[in-house]
Amino acid sequence: MQNRSVEAIRWQNDQLGLLDQRKLPLEEIWIEHASVDEVVNSIVEMVVRGAPAIGIAAAYGVALAGRAQYSRVGAQWKQALAPDLRALAGSRPTAVNLFWALDRMGGLISELADSVDPFERLLVEARAIHAEDLVANQTMGRLGADLIARESVTGKKVITHCNTGSLATGGYGTALGVIRSAYNAGLIDGVYADETRPWLQGSRLTAWELQQDGIPVVLNADGAAAHIMSKGAVSWVIVGADRVAANGDVANKIGTYSLAVLARYHGVKMMVVAPTSTFDLALQSGKDIPIEERSGEELTMFVGRKIAPEGVSGFNPVFDVTPAELIDVIVTERGVIESPSLATVKAIFCPKKSTLG
Amino acid sequence: MQNRSVEAIRWQNDQLGLLDQRKLPLEEIWIEHASVDEVVNSIVEMVVRGAPAIGIAAAYGVALAGRAQYSRVGAQWKQALAPDLRALAGSRPTAVNLFWALDRMGGLISELADSVDPFERLLVEARAIHAEDLVANQTMGRLGADLIARESVTGKKVITHCNTGSLATGGYGTALGVIRSAYNAGLIDGVYADETRPWLQGSRLTAWELQQDGIPVVLNADGAAAHIMSKGAVSWVIVGADRVAANGDVANKIGTYSLAVLARYHGVKMMVVAPTSTFDLALQSGKDIPIEERSGEELTMFVGRKIAPEGVSGFNPVFDVTPAELIDVIVTERGVIESPSLATVKAIFCPKKSTLG
Repeated sequence: MQNRSVEAIRWQNDQLGLLDQRKLPLEEIWIEHASVDEVVNSIVEMVVRGAPAIGIAAAYGVALAGRAQYSRVGAQWKQALAPDLRALAGSRPTAVNLFWALDRMGGLISELADSVDPFERLLVEARAIHAEDLVANQTMGRLGADLIARESVTGKKVITHCNTGSLATGGYGTALGVIRSAYNAGLIDGVYADETRPWLQGSRLTAWELQQDGIPVVLNADGAAAHIMSKGAVSWVIVGADRVAANGDVANKIGTYSLAVLARYHGVKMMVVAPTSTFDLALQSGKDIPIEERSGEELTMFVGRKIAPEGVSGFNPVFDVTPAELIDVIVTERGVIESPSLATVKAIFCPKKSTLG
Repeated sequence: MQNRSVEAIRWQNDQLGLLDQRKLPLEEIWIEHASVDEVVNSIVEMVVRGAPAIGIAAAYGVALAGRAQYSRVGAQWKQALAPDLRALAGSRPTAVNLFWALDRMGGLISELADSVDPFERLLVEARAIHAEDLVANQTMGRLGADLIARESVTGKKVITHCNTGSLATGGYGTALGVIRSAYNAGLIDGVYADETRPWLQGSRLTAWELQQDGIPVVLNADGAAAHIMSKGAVSWVIVGADRVAANGDVANKIGTYSLAVLARYHGVKMMVVAPTSTFDLALQSGKDIPIEERSGEELTMFVGRKIAPEGVSGFNPVFDVTPAELIDVIVTERGVIESPSLATVKAIFCPKKSTLG
């Protein structure tokens, strides 16, 4: 049962394969990517989504770009690569794992020789980013489950939002990894999944992953979360993150902030699960995190059908910011941050003496 | 601009016509009802929805039933009517206007002679219920707008949930009536409409009505309301009600309670707009209000298309209860109830000496 391997990212036949998450759960279609432009397009169009998964896909995209540019211009490949890196960086604005992965690949590029085909080295690094994310998720799963065990509330469910599982990461998942670990340890007896409008990541992806793992899942309208909490049905909100600021403020899928306010009101605990690659220590607070707005059509259309009158517009911010004071704990692969703040975040990143911040 | 007459209920050619709200805004289809069974079916299937509109439709249903039973059994029509009244009463459980309308029609029935065709008298009463609801809404519109004027916050929007307009009532609307009045008085400059999953009454109905009135409306995912409040974009939450208990607790569309918690957290005011026919003074508190659960398929299917994996279930309570302490004011056609409680509700219903409660 542990870690049945749903996977959404694979390197195969010298191409990057991405499971088309727009089509799940009705169809399982892999899209193969032989060029960085195709990868950029798949990030923009949300073939791949989820902060860690976007970072991993981008890393493979850099490898594809390095191969193409070296083949095209030889020793000038580094200069030629610059527009490709910019295109990747411009594909989605909020998830910082994208920029983290590009920085890491950039660091490697600066060490590589101009005159040698960089492809193998870039591919090894992308694979490492991919593999390390899976390991981080398994670690976080254990740490998060330990926190739930400490509370000793049995027979309870948790509620989650969006999809943070194997599909959103290098495998196992962030919030969904904790949920997997907690369920396997007998600490929770099931999950309420917010359907997560407008993209329905909860209905389409989280329900699908949990069902494959045999973990009981019940879907609910996002607006029903408060009602569920008022009935005492959940002990934790467990969510992922797209970017965490230095003070512990968290950008995540729209609706997360709502859950956090509701959790505090109802005495439900709020856990954010995010690898250190999701932290952006350059930002003092969540106010500095750029929030992507996508087309209002994601609200006015539904599976290809118009659901609002012609001419009515939708306001579609796809992330929101939850202030640190509403978060009980952030779980990272380096340890848990209780009562997140500048000081407690710093303690995870710079465990000895530090000048951070 | 004032009260452009979208209408959803009409008596015409000796039949009850209901605008099929499941088909809006893409199609405007009227369904004609010649029998009470057809009316029951249309309430169950949500051809007509909205607490006041359900009550009005049921009243016309009683008239249809009276006509049919008198024609069938003559002077035994009252006894014959009993199963019809039970069928109407069993059509939806939460909106109390249904029971209020049946009680009112029942009061008239008890006064009518056995030997005379009751149809004309019953129809006059149903028409009166219909007309009085419109007048009540116009009164509430004025009272609610006065409250907004008192706050003197200009250039703000309000946020609403579900549909409470002409489609949900005898005309003009409850919460949407206040919004119409406030917009026409220049007190607000537009509306955020929660799309209101799972039925999308916000996208399909509220957006349509406001657009027809030329009132600026922007749709948002239900989960985005907290984000919108955090930006200071709205000064009021304005919603309707399906049943108000004697202590001021309010049952309304699922997601209303969530908005109320979020409003309190953000210092946004919470207004409920409900005619006295929506009050159920027999219930001490919201805990006693029966909450309808509808099929989980309303979450897992959309326009005949599966949007969640086969076998995943949905939890679909379609109303929730907002405790009175989270409500700043309830607007009724008899006056406004500030800080709703047993005492302040009582003061509206029994303005002099009272033994209520």
